[in-house]
Amino acid sequence: MKPRNLLYAQSGGVTAVINASAAAVIRAARAAPQISAIYAARNGILGVLEEALFDTASLSDDTLTTIAHTPAGVFGSCRMDLDDPAANPAQFERLLAVLAAHDIGYFLYNGGNGSMDVVAKISRVAREQGYPLVCVGVPKTIDNDLEGTDCSPGFGSTAKYLALSMLEAGLDLRSMASRAGRAFVMETMGRNVGWLAAATALAVEAGGLDPADCAPHIVLLPEVPLDEAALLAEVERTVTRLGYCAVTVSEGIRGQDGRIVTEHARDERGYVQLGGAGQYITNLIQRTFGFKTHWSIPDYLQRAAAHMASATDYAQALAVGEAAVKLAVAGEDGYMAGIRRLNAQPYEWDVVAVACAGVANLERKLPAEFIRADGLHVTQTGRDYLRPFIVGERPMRYHAGLPVYSQPQLPLLRQKLPPYQVA
Amino acid sequence: MKPRNLLYAQSGGVTAVINASAAAVIRAARAAPQISAIYAARNGILGVLEEALFDTASLSDDTLTTIAHTPAGVFGSCRMDLDDPAANPAQFERLLAVLAAHDIGYFLYNGGNGSMDVVAKISRVAREQGYPLVCVGVPKTIDNDLEGTDCSPGFGSTAKYLALSMLEAGLDLRSMASRAGRAFVMETMGRNVGWLAAATALAVEAGGLDPADCAPHIVLLPEVPLDEAALLAEVERTVTRLGYCAVTVSEGIRGQDGRIVTEHARDERGYVQLGGAGQYITNLIQRTFGFKTHWSIPDYLQRAAAHMASATDYAQALAVGEAAVKLAVAGEDGYMAGIRRLNAQPYEWDVVAVACAGVANLERKLPAEFIRADGLHVTQTGRDYLRPFIVGERPMRYHAGLPVYSQPQLPLLRQKLPPYQVA
Repeated sequence: MKPRNLLYAQSGGVTAVINASAAAVIRAARAAPQISAIYAARNGILGVLEEALFDTASLSDDTLTTIAHTPAGVFGSCRMDLDDPAANPAQFERLLAVLAAHDIGYFLYNGGNGSMDVVAKISRVAREQGYPLVCVGVPKTIDNDLEGTDCSPGFGSTAKYLALSMLEAGLDLRSMASRAGRAFVMETMGRNVGWLAAATALAVEAGGLDPADCAPHIVLLPEVPLDEAALLAEVERTVTRLGYCAVTVSEGIRGQDGRIVTEHARDERGYVQLGGAGQYITNLIQRTFGFKTHWSIPDYLQRAAAHMASATDYAQALAVGEAAVKLAVAGEDGYMAGIRRLNAQPYEWDVVAVACAGVANLERKLPAEFIRADGLHVTQTGRDYLRPFIVGERPMRYHAGLPVYSQPQLPLLRQKLPPYQVA
Repeated sequence: MKPRNLLYAQSGGVTAVINASAAAVIRAARAAPQISAIYAARNGILGVLEEALFDTASLSDDTLTTIAHTPAGVFGSCRMDLDDPAANPAQFERLLAVLAAHDIGYFLYNGGNGSMDVVAKISRVAREQGYPLVCVGVPKTIDNDLEGTDCSPGFGSTAKYLALSMLEAGLDLRSMASRAGRAFVMETMGRNVGWLAAATALAVEAGGLDPADCAPHIVLLPEVPLDEAALLAEVERTVTRLGYCAVTVSEGIRGQDGRIVTEHARDERGYVQLGGAGQYITNLIQRTFGFKTHWSIPDYLQRAAAHMASATDYAQALAVGEAAVKLAVAGEDGYMAGIRRLNAQPYEWDVVAVACAGVANLERKLPAEFIRADGLHVTQTGRDYLRPFIVGERPMRYHAGLPVYSQPQLPLLRQKLPPYQVA
């Protein structure tokens, strides 16, 4: 069979290790005789529609190594779902026209559950239209809400950053404690699921004290409707015992009515843009007890912290990129490279093919057995499950005090089709 | 002369490297024949008043090494100024009584400009009362507002963390840029001075693009009254050129009237507790342009990030601790161990004695030549001055994915005096 070109694209919120998957895809594709040129779309599926495609040929192996260590999406990402092909056939005609114009035989999409829906849809339409294409998903999301994989690459590094941040801030809080009491609230990402908030519970094992005394003392999860009285009682008990209290709050915590506690803006896709849960809990504590309460919102810092990437997460990001290319050349159309847990302690895993249609748009929540009975913390079972994802540090190169990252300026391919206006 | 005991205490906001100074003090004091026991007060001067003194004798050399790598104040800190001795002689009688009860001949106080006032006051009163005591200051403050020293230990590590955070968040922002525009605002600490906000400007050199295109695109400093129209015009120019804009905001930015932009709480000392400047600027941008704007408040994370401590800062924190002991045994009463810049490039420095009375309660602001003419960024001169402080990484020990820190549980000395109620 004649070699064909491969197109790779990045989708959704970026992570500390999505570029590791990108570098692994490019390296594996270079080694595959079935693959000719390797392109990357600018800003995900948006770049495919716009026929904005980078040629990766000029990236040296050294540059690929630096890219693998660089946070965020080196080719740009986007938040864009595809329409139902029956409702908007023109969108899919355009996509296939762009793929055909550049002889794309392999399309690899690096994203979360929405992106796996994109893979499943393009795969189905290409089949229906008789366009020869292998579509493969490369998993990624800091939220860890993707089904069909033990974890999502990107999660482990953000989890490590947040657990580390809570550990360090907890020590700070402790050393400033006073009889008046003091509290600290850290807001994590996690629109609907508490995986990231839960991961901060790993800090209790590293505080050097009885885990029951270490930050975080309370973890508020979107899976548990907020019981303000129970929360405040736990804050009071903790401050009485220790003089201070550290609380992790997921941005997506919900009230007893199931509605998000603070909604203050909606983005282009109609998603609620959050950011007020930490402040809400801070005000609640401050108003109730009157003592000094600080709050932190790491925001982008938590998903871009490549300097603190988990070596396990990095290895998995590389592995799913490499495996996705193998699935592609093996013709495994419509599949995602998923991580399978083989053993808990020591943590062992491999990469398997998972049908994208089976995971698209699903959302994996924190299991009930990971949540303490009172809903205010994470169980030992949960910590045991989460711990492997943050293990290991990746050597980083520094210059003048800052990590060496890469933002290569690549040429765009000459466009072969008329311009297309994305709605 | 008969050896006497040394008392060390930590004061004010803690840092990523204040425990390095503590470990250096203990090690140097152990080696000094003039010094007998080495004590540490719990929660700074408050612990002296309360006669809450730890005996550090049981700390092994290994534990001291771990302590030197642990953020925050391992003995506890406090925010407490001493009164005017003439107005409250009882406070100083109590202090001297506690020192005498434990035969303290050397008192080392590790803090900022308020703490140097404590050193100067105790030194003066002890002299007046004929109590033989050598008081020495060990400089520390993330704010870098202390006079008489090239920088304050603690500043370099927070500066490094913030520059790194802006670098990483800037890459994230860039990869998510869209035609609609997008902005990111990060709020740094810095009540009255812009040193920390200014340090984020170092990120422009590491972004891998033209520095003019790299985050942060705007730096808002307390030294420059906020000109909202100029700020918004610069945001618009940046977003038009790049599709996104990253802004650093000091928590202490002031309006044209000289008043802090957002005041929302006052702490026990009457200090304004800040935290709203980032949100204020975020709202301003969002309201004006309508595009998605994220904001981050690292809060305690920025001063507790020992995992990212600057090796230069760490070396200086060790050096001032060691030098303070040398000053103490040399009888240099009322002096602080200050850092002197000997050469800019390569950065060379040593430690010299600086009279505490000359630096107490002064506040070093960002020099005008570090601020760009339009007040919206930092000059090359400023970056050249700041760069050495963030250089170098310190090897850290990790266990199960998190740094190994120490919170030793030390015995308190048996109290010899009646209890004392701190007002």
